[in-house]
Amino acid sequence: MARQPIPLRWKLARLEADGLPGPWIPSTVPGAVQLDWAAANALPDYSHGDNVRFWQGLEDYSWLYRAELDATPTLVSGERLFLIVEGVDYACDVLLGGRRLLQHTGMQIPIRLDVTDSWKDGAELDILIHLAPKAADMPAGRAQARESCKPAVSYGWDFHPRLIPLGLWQNAFLEVRSAVHFHEAPEVKYSLSEDCTLACGELRVMLNSPATANMTLTWRLRKSDGEVVISQDMAVEPGMSRLSVPFRLEQPALWWPHDQGLPSRYISEVSLLDEAVAEVDGHSARIGFRRVRLCMAPGQWEEPHLFPKSRSRPPLTFEINGRRIFAKGSNWVCPHIFPGAVGRVEYESQLRLAHESHFNILRLWGGSVAPQDCFYDLCDELGIMVWQDFPLSCNAYPDTEPYLTLLDQESRSLIKRLKRHPAVVLWCGGNELFNAWSGMTDQAFALRLLNRNTFELDPATPFLPTAPVEGMGHGHYVFRDMEAGEEAWGIFQKSSCSAYSEFGCPGPASVETLKRILPASELWPPRSGTSWETHHAFAAWLPDSWLHLAACNHYFGPSETLEELVERGQFLQAAGFQGLFEEARRQKPVSSMALNWCFNEPWPCAANNSLISWPCEPKPALAAVGLACRPTLLSARIRKLAWKAGENFDPEIWILHDGPNGIGAFEVAVWLEHDGVRIPLVRWTAGPIDANCNLQGPRVQCRLPKMSDPRFRLLLEAEGHPEFGSCYILLKENEPVPKIAKDSPARAMNF
Amino acid sequence: MARQPIPLRWKLARLEADGLPGPWIPSTVPGAVQLDWAAANALPDYSHGDNVRFWQGLEDYSWLYRAELDATPTLVSGERLFLIVEGVDYACDVLLGGRRLLQHTGMQIPIRLDVTDSWKDGAELDILIHLAPKAADMPAGRAQARESCKPAVSYGWDFHPRLIPLGLWQNAFLEVRSAVHFHEAPEVKYSLSEDCTLACGELRVMLNSPATANMTLTWRLRKSDGEVVISQDMAVEPGMSRLSVPFRLEQPALWWPHDQGLPSRYISEVSLLDEAVAEVDGHSARIGFRRVRLCMAPGQWEEPHLFPKSRSRPPLTFEINGRRIFAKGSNWVCPHIFPGAVGRVEYESQLRLAHESHFNILRLWGGSVAPQDCFYDLCDELGIMVWQDFPLSCNAYPDTEPYLTLLDQESRSLIKRLKRHPAVVLWCGGNELFNAWSGMTDQAFALRLLNRNTFELDPATPFLPTAPVEGMGHGHYVFRDMEAGEEAWGIFQKSSCSAYSEFGCPGPASVETLKRILPASELWPPRSGTSWETHHAFAAWLPDSWLHLAACNHYFGPSETLEELVERGQFLQAAGFQGLFEEARRQKPVSSMALNWCFNEPWPCAANNSLISWPCEPKPALAAVGLACRPTLLSARIRKLAWKAGENFDPEIWILHDGPNGIGAFEVAVWLEHDGVRIPLVRWTAGPIDANCNLQGPRVQCRLPKMSDPRFRLLLEAEGHPEFGSCYILLKENEPVPKIAKDSPARAMNF
Repeated sequence: MARQPIPLRWKLARLEADGLPGPWIPSTVPGAVQLDWAAANALPDYSHGDNVRFWQGLEDYSWLYRAELDATPTLVSGERLFLIVEGVDYACDVLLGGRRLLQHTGMQIPIRLDVTDSWKDGAELDILIHLAPKAADMPAGRAQARESCKPAVSYGWDFHPRLIPLGLWQNAFLEVRSAVHFHEAPEVKYSLSEDCTLACGELRVMLNSPATANMTLTWRLRKSDGEVVISQDMAVEPGMSRLSVPFRLEQPALWWPHDQGLPSRYISEVSLLDEAVAEVDGHSARIGFRRVRLCMAPGQWEEPHLFPKSRSRPPLTFEINGRRIFAKGSNWVCPHIFPGAVGRVEYESQLRLAHESHFNILRLWGGSVAPQDCFYDLCDELGIMVWQDFPLSCNAYPDTEPYLTLLDQESRSLIKRLKRHPAVVLWCGGNELFNAWSGMTDQAFALRLLNRNTFELDPATPFLPTAPVEGMGHGHYVFRDMEAGEEAWGIFQKSSCSAYSEFGCPGPASVETLKRILPASELWPPRSGTSWETHHAFAAWLPDSWLHLAACNHYFGPSETLEELVERGQFLQAAGFQGLFEEARRQKPVSSMALNWCFNEPWPCAANNSLISWPCEPKPALAAVGLACRPTLLSARIRKLAWKAGENFDPEIWILHDGPNGIGAFEVAVWLEHDGVRIPLVRWTAGPIDANCNLQGPRVQCRLPKMSDPRFRLLLEAEGHPEFGSCYILLKENEPVPKIAKDSPARAMNF
Repeated sequence: MARQPIPLRWKLARLEADGLPGPWIPSTVPGAVQLDWAAANALPDYSHGDNVRFWQGLEDYSWLYRAELDATPTLVSGERLFLIVEGVDYACDVLLGGRRLLQHTGMQIPIRLDVTDSWKDGAELDILIHLAPKAADMPAGRAQARESCKPAVSYGWDFHPRLIPLGLWQNAFLEVRSAVHFHEAPEVKYSLSEDCTLACGELRVMLNSPATANMTLTWRLRKSDGEVVISQDMAVEPGMSRLSVPFRLEQPALWWPHDQGLPSRYISEVSLLDEAVAEVDGHSARIGFRRVRLCMAPGQWEEPHLFPKSRSRPPLTFEINGRRIFAKGSNWVCPHIFPGAVGRVEYESQLRLAHESHFNILRLWGGSVAPQDCFYDLCDELGIMVWQDFPLSCNAYPDTEPYLTLLDQESRSLIKRLKRHPAVVLWCGGNELFNAWSGMTDQAFALRLLNRNTFELDPATPFLPTAPVEGMGHGHYVFRDMEAGEEAWGIFQKSSCSAYSEFGCPGPASVETLKRILPASELWPPRSGTSWETHHAFAAWLPDSWLHLAACNHYFGPSETLEELVERGQFLQAAGFQGLFEEARRQKPVSSMALNWCFNEPWPCAANNSLISWPCEPKPALAAVGLACRPTLLSARIRKLAWKAGENFDPEIWILHDGPNGIGAFEVAVWLEHDGVRIPLVRWTAGPIDANCNLQGPRVQCRLPKMSDPRFRLLLEAEGHPEFGSCYILLKENEPVPKIAKDSPARAMNF
């Protein structure tokens, strides 16, 4: 027999001051103790107003989960009974009949506990969740997470309220296994030939204990259409426990990011059969064949060229299956405050938006929890690369033995879980660790440990100690730096990064969302000290983050209504991100990556850098970014957003092209459109264009005419290729703009 | 009984084309096959003229060493007979009676082969040395070393002829050991409390096999004066093989670099006693207690401050026992072409010169072989820190399994051997690996492997992947870049590195040395294509390296005699290094390290950047550098070397102070001396000066008078502190200088 899961129902009690459980309440697993508690005690919706305060502090209790079985498990000869807990948040004891069987710490380490010999029918199976880890003597905030592997975001972040989940965040059940079974998931280890036309490797299987009789291991590797490409049976003799089946696969269908090819996958089916050819254990998984390298951008080896010479910048250009590609995407943060409350459905709706926006990569930011396997399965399927951070973010994680022991276990568990996914193309130690606000360095033991563990367990996937590293840039996080008087567009145009791995432009949520989450009395005007602040419109990072009223006022003058403010804020976000993604792309091949901050959010923020509002409501910026990330588009490098009549308007015209094939020549027309009038600026016969190459075109020189409308447009059109066309909405400087219902590059282009 | 060595005499034969040994010749072990061959075949001295060509190619043969025993070893019950080879260059088979017992590769991995069961009296004990590793399809040169752990220098370098040693480069002998003995050297593992007043740790002992009877482990830790500070006996019961003796030592005498305190050491004596209290094995080693960290220099966390923000520079300031120190020293290269031909005597004479020159650190450059233990013992004793490179240099070492297996073994062996030495304060992956001419990156498996091995085996010592890393500078390697028209002084004054880990100024060897190594017919004038070139005066790096005639001619006009040229070249080297060391120190605390390229040389170079000529003859630059590295000195930042009458002479006056104590105020007088006249320029009441802090003083402003002598001097004097005084010899621009017998800052100051 293969594995037989036995579902468990769970109930929950809070341990009170006397150390005894309080009243039992129903529990939903996967979930969180706070969600169960809130349901049982009718706590108000935390996403409304400042209700979140009613939810705080529950992490300072211990909580007892108790299993309820519908039937007593029965085992036949030799079978083993396991308790499987796929994810615990964060530390627990497992007790059976009051006796502690296991102490456990870590969100990524599954519990696989053989309880056969401890089992007594009727004995209570309990999981005692310990209170959330908080580093001693640290103020409330992320620094409390600096000695644990609990992701720091829930301790309070500029887009996340302080609300620290606890509980069983993944499934918890019993499972009957044969006496001999797979100790860990069988692994297909391979390497590709230099030209990627041959995969060689081995299937690695480790049994929990040596075989006691003659058995057979069977392995079938199938294409998605079911065709078997590898079929191997191996005799397993008594005493064997580590099995290896070598293989060689010619012309493997490669896994590609979706913008470069098909994300082909295979199904690996492994069975262990007894002498009667009955299956005693089985395992099926989708895998993919790909090779990933980080490469130096052209010209980077020639730098630095002056004495005293330092090192050349590290390589940050992804090469997938021998092809250098430009990585376009976003920083994916936790999609929910409670990671146990979301799953495949929620992931899929977000990931489909990312795919439709032409993103080929997501960085799974280290402040958040690495999600369940189904997330990575979806990325495999959709051809979206994953840069996976370890759970370190903006703290000085210590060199101490207890922390390093935790990190060692947690990281090994995460690497083993994710390494089969072809989408996972980068391991990274964590977020902004080499910056002042974290204070870690290359010498930090935590990062040397992570370098070691990834090297030992998954050397075929590159490792970076943190982001940013040398040559990589983070920020800015506003469209206009009011103090410096600089716009993000101009800052990027002066920069020369190998990778832009974080850059933000904040924008408000929709009017509907704001009305849903903010008390009516606080809606207008937005003010700090209200629920606007609870929802990060103010004092999230700088006092005026993320609503950034000052920037809105700078470009448009004071807004008179909520609707006006939202339209303007969302316009700035969309315009900002459009310009930043395109500028990062224009700087290819020195630049090889553009990831905005951030894709999603864990709860409804009143304003945030995210492209979608919680749970999955696109802001206008998403469509603008989707246009900026098209495989091929006409693009303009524009110095600034707001212009005066009489100024020299001088955009540089480019064709941005990330596709794997070349394009023939075509005619480009550039127009200025104002007050309903179209003025031709320049025509250009562009191309032909090589695969994965940009092409710089002419620079427009135009004295701006007097215009009536407060906004004007630059239009770029490609003859025969309407899908390459682009539109930039620009402003007249310092002239208040009347209400425009909906205006964004996306809508203007009608894509 | 403790270990009983049985010396072996060796003879040597070259394997000829028929695969059979040629005539036997006497062999000296430690040594090299080339040295034995040369002695037997009367090859001419390779250091003279271009005789080195007669020595080339011998590395393409296999060589057979055969042991000769004076007596047959006799073993009493249970004793084991071991073959010990402390160092093989580079790969060998060990054969006994014609049967291969072992295949071995690596210079740092000792052979410790139990031959008890294989031994047959009268059977021949042979060591078959394989031909030198050379990567296929690579041109003659360092790239041939890119797939092995054989240091690259001997394949040809800009200061090393192509001459590739082979053979037994360390001792090779038999040893009788008890049945139970220490498998590796017992290790004292410790950590220091934050204030360094308490050492806690354990003595770790691993036996070769489990104890078979009751035994006792005794441990005595003694101060240098013999006083026992730890005395512990531990019962070893049958079956035990891993032993741990915890300890706690209050107020340990710390090991300090000599300029910061005493390099205190302890003697650790470990004995294994049998039931009769007889010693069955013993081990004695000197150890030291120190804590080393790499720290960020002040202000470095604040950089970069502009968006998009990259990482802060990595930390490169040594903190020893809680005190930040400025690291002053040099790059130590192989002191001999044949590493087996030198030992403690040669090391000591060089290291004493380094000590007298106020060097507190040496970088053991990765192109060379890590020397014998006695080198590191001397560094421990003298208080000279060691930065130890692994044997990778200026190549793209591959990600392949065979190379990584070698590197894993070789590096583990080196780490285990050196980690007891308190002087070893830094592990580094190798030389200039992240530069274009090497082409490696952070993703290279070799460097990830070295990170792992140092982290696992010696985490208390920092690790850098290579030099230079970010913030670290290499070069320039000439005093004047003729093409750019820049002087090394000015280049450094414009730089801002955290560490200057290589900078060179070439100078010729003495007239005596040149007359010894060059045929009389070629001595004058120096020309490329002659033995001058063989000895690196020309075409070593650039066509005009290292004699750099163009620079000499630029400052002095053509030289008329060898003596004149040598004096001028040595003057430029001394002046250059004086200015560079002092400038690197003036930039403290951002700058924390000044290591010139290089200290020594493997054979007599006609010209080289080294401070000493082979074997141990100081050039004038050594004295100048010794003055520039004094703990405290008056220093002048001078813009350039050559000046015209009427120019504004404007040196900045500084006090450089690296000492651990402060200094009270004193009077400083600055003089210009020309044509025997002293002109007062400025007086300054300096100080008090804090420990380990520089002090910037006034900037002189002086219109240079007309001068007759072609050289003039800037003199800095400190009242009451004659030892702080400094002298700078400067030149009149473009005026040929008559002969001056001996002129250097050192001699001028009469130190």
